Amino acid sequence: MPTTTAPEIYDPYRVCPSRQLLDRIGDRWTVLIIGVLEDGPQRFSQISRRIDGISQKMLTQTLRSLEADGLVTRTVFPEVPPHVEYELSELGRTLLEPLAILRAWAVDHMDEVAAARTAAAA
Amino acid sequence: MPTTTAPEIYDPYRVCPSRQLLDRIGDRWTVLIIGVLEDGPQRFSQISRRIDGISQKMLTQTLRSLEADGLVTRTVFPEVPPHVEYELSELGRTLLEPLAILRAWAVDHMDEVAAARTAAAA
Repeated sequence: MPTTTAPEIYDPYRVCPSRQLLDRIGDRWTVLIIGVLEDGPQRFSQISRRIDGISQKMLTQTLRSLEADGLVTRTVFPEVPPHVEYELSELGRTLLEPLAILRAWAVDHMDEVAAARTAAAA
Repeated sequence: MPTTTAPEIYDPYRVCPSRQLLDRIGDRWTVLIIGVLEDGPQRFSQISRRIDGISQKMLTQTLRSLEADGLVTRTVFPEVPPHVEYELSELGRTLLEPLAILRAWAVDHMDEVAAARTAAAA
């Protein structure tokens, strides 16, 4: 086992809590939704508009999971018509830096990876 | 758009290279395989043994993708019997730090997330 890595991460899927959590936060939609909520509270329709390609169903599911995990809070405003806002919790905000580092890596290295893919396909 | 995030990350799936790349590196198996290869070159069977729950098919597929992306190199040693080793490329090694930060977050916060889940289910 690498000394730099918690061994339990490598346990069978669904057995270890940190492994389950890694699966969750590694999900592409989670990464994108948390990035959108970095700007502050937003409505479902606002999040939906900013993440092209996400279905309403997938956005609903992912927001529910994030809420159950304590990463996102959901607030209902009793206005007419009522509206709902989603916001990062304090715990959710601790994920911002790790995910920003991952996104930055993707942006910085996409050209190298694209070149490798082209070479592999040739 | 958040000023801290590259806008193209939010483009439709399969259109933007950095978005595609984020999907790839966010994959749970990619995170775990790269973590295993952090220790140096390893054979298929060694990687397989260290990641409980990964099928042979999924490990084969993910290693091929990582190779096509230029993140992992595959070396065949012409011995008797021949053997194959997988190793992180220089590009692949640049992913170690971002992924280590993500794994560390998962380990550090798993108790808080588990508590939130228990509360949500109650």
